[in-house]
This record gives sequence, C-alpha cells and structure tokens, in this order.
Amino acid sequence: MVDGGTSLAALGEFGLIAALTDGIASSPAVLVGPGDDAAVVAAPDGRVVVSCDMYLDGVHFRTDWASGEQIGRRVALAAMADICAMGAMPSALVVALATPPDIPVDLATGIGTGITGAAGQYGAVLVGGDVTRSDTLAITVTVLGDLRGAAPVLRSGAAPGEVVALAGRVGWAAAGLDVLSRGFRSPAVVVGAYRVPEPPLTAGPIAASAGATAMLDVSDGLLADLGHLARASGVRIDVSSAALPVPDKLAEVASALGRDPRAWLLTGGDDHALVATFPAETALPEPWRRIGTVLPGDGHVIDGSTETAPDTDTDTERAPDPARGLVTVDGEIFDADATAGGFDHFRRR
Amino acid sequence: MVDGGTSLAALGEFGLIAALTDGIASSPAVLVGPGDDAAVVAAPDGRVVVSCDMYLDGVHFRTDWASGEQIGRRVALAAMADICAMGAMPSALVVALATPPDIPVDLATGIGTGITGAAGQYGAVLVGGDVTRSDTLAITVTVLGDLRGAAPVLRSGAAPGEVVALAGRVGWAAAGLDVLSRGFRSPAVVVGAYRVPEPPLTAGPIAASAGATAMLDVSDGLLADLGHLARASGVRIDVSSAALPVPDKLAEVASALGRDPRAWLLTGGDDHALVATFPAETALPEPWRRIGTVLPGDGHVIDGSTETAPDTDTDTERAPDPARGLVTVDGEIFDADATAGGFDHFRRR
Repeated sequence: MVDGGTSLAALGEFGLIAALTDGIASSPAVLVGPGDDAAVVAAPDGRVVVSCDMYLDGVHFRTDWASGEQIGRRVALAAMADICAMGAMPSALVVALATPPDIPVDLATGIGTGITGAAGQYGAVLVGGDVTRSDTLAITVTVLGDLRGAAPVLRSGAAPGEVVALAGRVGWAAAGLDVLSRGFRSPAVVVGAYRVPEPPLTAGPIAASAGATAMLDVSDGLLADLGHLARASGVRIDVSSAALPVPDKLAEVASALGRDPRAWLLTGGDDHALVATFPAETALPEPWRRIGTVLPGDGHVIDGSTETAPDTDTDTERAPDPARGLVTVDGEIFDADATAGGFDHFRRR
Repeated sequence: MVDGGTSLAALGEFGLIAALTDGIASSPAVLVGPGDDAAVVAAPDGRVVVSCDMYLDGVHFRTDWASGEQIGRRVALAAMADICAMGAMPSALVVALATPPDIPVDLATGIGTGITGAAGQYGAVLVGGDVTRSDTLAITVTVLGDLRGAAPVLRSGAAPGEVVALAGRVGWAAAGLDVLSRGFRSPAVVVGAYRVPEPPLTAGPIAASAGATAMLDVSDGLLADLGHLARASGVRIDVSSAALPVPDKLAEVASALGRDPRAWLLTGGDDHALVATFPAETALPEPWRRIGTVLPGDGHVIDGSTETAPDTDTDTERAPDPARGLVTVDGEIFDADATAGGFDHFRRR
C-alpha cells in the first residue's frame, strides 16, 4: 500500500516498478511478462508491428491540466492509434518513465494505471519498461501490434478516383487545448476530449478488412496528415467541407473564444482520428464516413513548387512545406499557415 | 548535407528524422521500415523478444565525456544486451530521441550513427522512432529480438549444484567512470570501456544453445545482478574470487586513484557482461568461464532477514535489500553497501 501523497523518493525505483506492474492483466499473447531482462510476446502470423512515441511534460501534456491516470490513458491511446493505422491491433506495450523524484507517488502510479487501463480496453498488456530519474517527466510508449494475417495498410497506397474517409472525431481535442490554454476548465466535453481522446482504434483493422488502400492516424492535423498520405502516394486529395460540418458544441465554444472552429477540425491533431482511402466502389463500413476524393497529382512534388501552390515562402528559417498544395478543401488551398506540415518540435515560430 | 556546427533548430524535426534514417541498412527482417505510422518486423518463430531502456544526459551519459556516436553506440549495445541475455539476437531497434533544440546537429546525428552502427554490427536495423524537443537530452531505445526457435532463458531457472559462468568483462567501465569523474581522460583503455562497452552479445544465444538454465546481463553490478538471479531462482550463489582476478591494468589504475579494484569488478555495471548458470556437467562454450557455484537457498528471502545476513538496516528511508545475503564471495558477504541491490534512481543516498 502506497501513500499517494508521498513523493516518489520515498517509494524508490523498485517500489515504483512494483506499483506500476501490480495488477497487470495476463494475456495469451504474453509468453514472458515483466521482471526479466526482456519480455517475450506472441507474434502469431510471424510479424510484429512496432511504433514508439515520446511524451514530455510541458510539451505533450501538462500535469496541471490532467490527472496521472488521464495522462496515462492519453499517451497509451495515442501510441496505440499508430498501430491501428496500419490495420493491426495492439498486443503489448513497453513503457519508459523518466520522472523527477519529488513528484507525488499517485501521479506516477496514476500514469501506470491509465496506461494499463487503456491498453486493457483493447486487449493489450504492459509487458515491460524502464523507470529513471529526470528533471522532466517523460513517457516513452512503444506498442507492439498484431496484423492477424492481414497486409499492413501503408500511407503510399492511395490512387486517383478513390474516396477519402474519416473515422473518429477531429477538432474536439484542439478546442479543449484552446480552452485549457486560456486558463478555463470547461466545457467538460472539449476539455475531456483533450485530456483523454477517443481514437477509433478498432476502425483500423475494420478498414483493412474492407480494402483500405492507404491509412494513417491524424496526429499533426487532418490536412497536414492527408498531405503526408498524398505525398507518399503521389496523389492530390480534395476534402469536402460539407462532409466536415462543425459540431454545434464546437461552434459554440469557438464563438465564446473568438476562434474559427474549422481550423480546429482541419488542423487539430490530438483526437487521433484515422483517415483512409478506399476504392470508389467500396461500401464504407462503420464508423467510416466519406470526406473527400483522391485526385491525380504529382508524387514528385517535394519542394512545394506545384502549379496550384507556387512556393512563396521566403522565410529562410523554414524549409518549404512539401505538403502544401497536395491537399485542398473544396478545391481550394485552405490556409497556408494553418496547413503547414505538422508540428515541428525544433523550428522557431 | 548538414553542417555539423549548426544547431538542431535550423535543421528541424523532419530534417533530423531524415538525417537519422538516412543510410539505414535494409534487412530481410524489416517488412515495413521507417516513414509510416509503424514498422513491421518479421518474427519468424511466432514470438518477439522486447526490451526498453531510457538514457538521460547527466544520469546515464555525459555529452562532455563522449561523442554523439560513442553515446549512440553505448546505448544501443546496452539495450541489445537485454535481448541477448534472453538467448535471442536483436532484429530491430526503435528509438525515441528528446533533445534541446540548441544542441549541435552533429551530436544528434552522431547518436543516430552510433545506434545504427552498433545495431548493424549484429544484424539489427533501426526501423522507427520519434524525435521531440526537451530541456534534457534523452534517448529511449526499444529493441526487438528473435529467439530463433529456442526457449527464452529466464532469471528463474538456476538450481543448486549448477555452475555460475561469466561472459565478457566486468570492472572496466566502472574504472573508466571513476577516471572520468575525477576529471581525467586517460588511460584510454578504461575510459574507452566506459564510453563504448563491448558486451559479449553473441554469448547469449551461445549459452542458450549450450543449455544455460538462467541468464541476465550485468547492468547493476555483478553481485547485485547475481542477487536478482538468485532471488528469482530461489537459490544462493557463491562467487570464487580466484575466478575473478584483477586485470593488471585495473590494478594499476586503482592504485593511482586509491581505489579497490575488486569493487569495480564486483559492483560495476556498465560493461554489460552476461552471467548465466549451467548444469554442472556442461562443457562451457567460448567465451563463457566459470566464476562460481549455485547453492541451496531460500527463494522466499525477500526482506533481507537470512541466517547469514540478518537485517540490521535501520535507515527507514531505504527498504531492506532483498538481494543481500543471497550472493557471497568465497563464502562471505563481500560488502553490504557495495552489494546493495543495484542503482536506485530515486532513493536519497
């Protein structure tokens, strides 16, 4: 029994590991679990999908904006979304936790509870990890996934004439982030969307079964990530704004904040929706809905110099955005700044 | 072409990713490499071994003590040692790099070069990762491994009457760390051992083939890690000091520093040697050599209260060391402080 009010220093590294691995569910996929040099996980079809994301306090989350459990759920869900965007389901998670020794024990153990809880919701299990001391709270989540015999759905398979479809919500987490950034804590529905997203994880394998030709998860924003898909596939993509109506609640919050809610929908990333392309004749399975069309395009556009979007960027601190011009909304480029190629952690803005 | 003298901010996140993944070797084990939401790695025998370690500037390495490439090699080798200690060989690495934007580009890319170089030396490939901004340089390395049909060698399989064997060096990196900590940069042979260890990675699968009953890599120190093995197996272990002679070079360095070289051998962890137990009749394969014996012991000793090592620890800040008393040298407990259960990142010392 650990007193949640005490700091981590009193619990110690091995105590923290014990608290984090306590109550971990078992799974037939786990052949050797935590406690040895490494874990052994089943890979029934002879392949394993693997993805890794690192989340830092103050960059990707804030401990004053969410509880440990919310932070844990959020990072696990976001990390698992990458696996599902390949058409796989997560089977095992490995987590490295770097933390200041003076954080409350229940923040650290809450992160563990959130991670294992979110994983368990989808049949995945925490099988190992590492804990270490750091000045900054940092969480690295590696997820292993199982394609169950299916071919992985890459970013590069989209072809002209196909439909672009979306699963899950976009814009809600961005609205929540905007609200929190201004010091508010409500409305709960958008703040909650930021704190713990609801990525449509099972929609990934569903899309793969339905014949999706390309897929990825929306982490940089809908237009930016469609730009990644368009570039990898050598196509253009046009999104229909009519297929992306602004939900009443987001319109209301945007109005109160003096924001454009469409920017949240088109450029917000933290909901971890999935986007995919399907052959035109595909009857889209639930929860997928059509939002656009794949058009012929030039896969060799890598410097932003396209006929529809000449590169007028004269800021030498920033490279031209390769995604610009590859994605349009109702045939028009939405907003060059808002559609810039995702969040770049190192550039000066 | 990147100017190594410039800072990361000028290169940007996507530029750094390109620099890190540039020149990555291909491997038949990599079915989908970097650039998509996730990678897909072959797991030919239907299982995958996975381990994860996080390394931080100032805690696990120092950028003023080693180059980026040395740091990269070191963390990759240390991470791969965990896979080999299961009897597997590494197949793929996934790396998360958190870095201040103002570090020199060649430090960041050197880390990438070191990681891919060390991995490639053993047939493993970098298949993905994440880069993000942070105040502290942090590297999380996740390694996937292939058991090639063999059973994993756990910590828990040792039985009384078996022999304890060592592969690789112990004490050299600890000597190097001691030298560096005092502000010296030589002798090169010990400083180099700290900067880039030479873990005997292939000795892991060799031990598995030869019938090793338990194995782990020495990361907390020989006695501490043998304590982990002894506890997991419910045995005692006695190490023969005659089998661990102090190398002349270490004796010389220790003499110059006024240190006990045996403490380096018995408690230093950064060489990432492997220790294993084998049935008594086993002809130990190269490079394994006998260093001790497995004795009957009480696997239920979890509070330090054993007949040979009564718990006299009255420091309430620290839990009793469960490993104490489970490992002896020539039948005697070496040094209670020196053999404490490994490096605890959170305890006050």
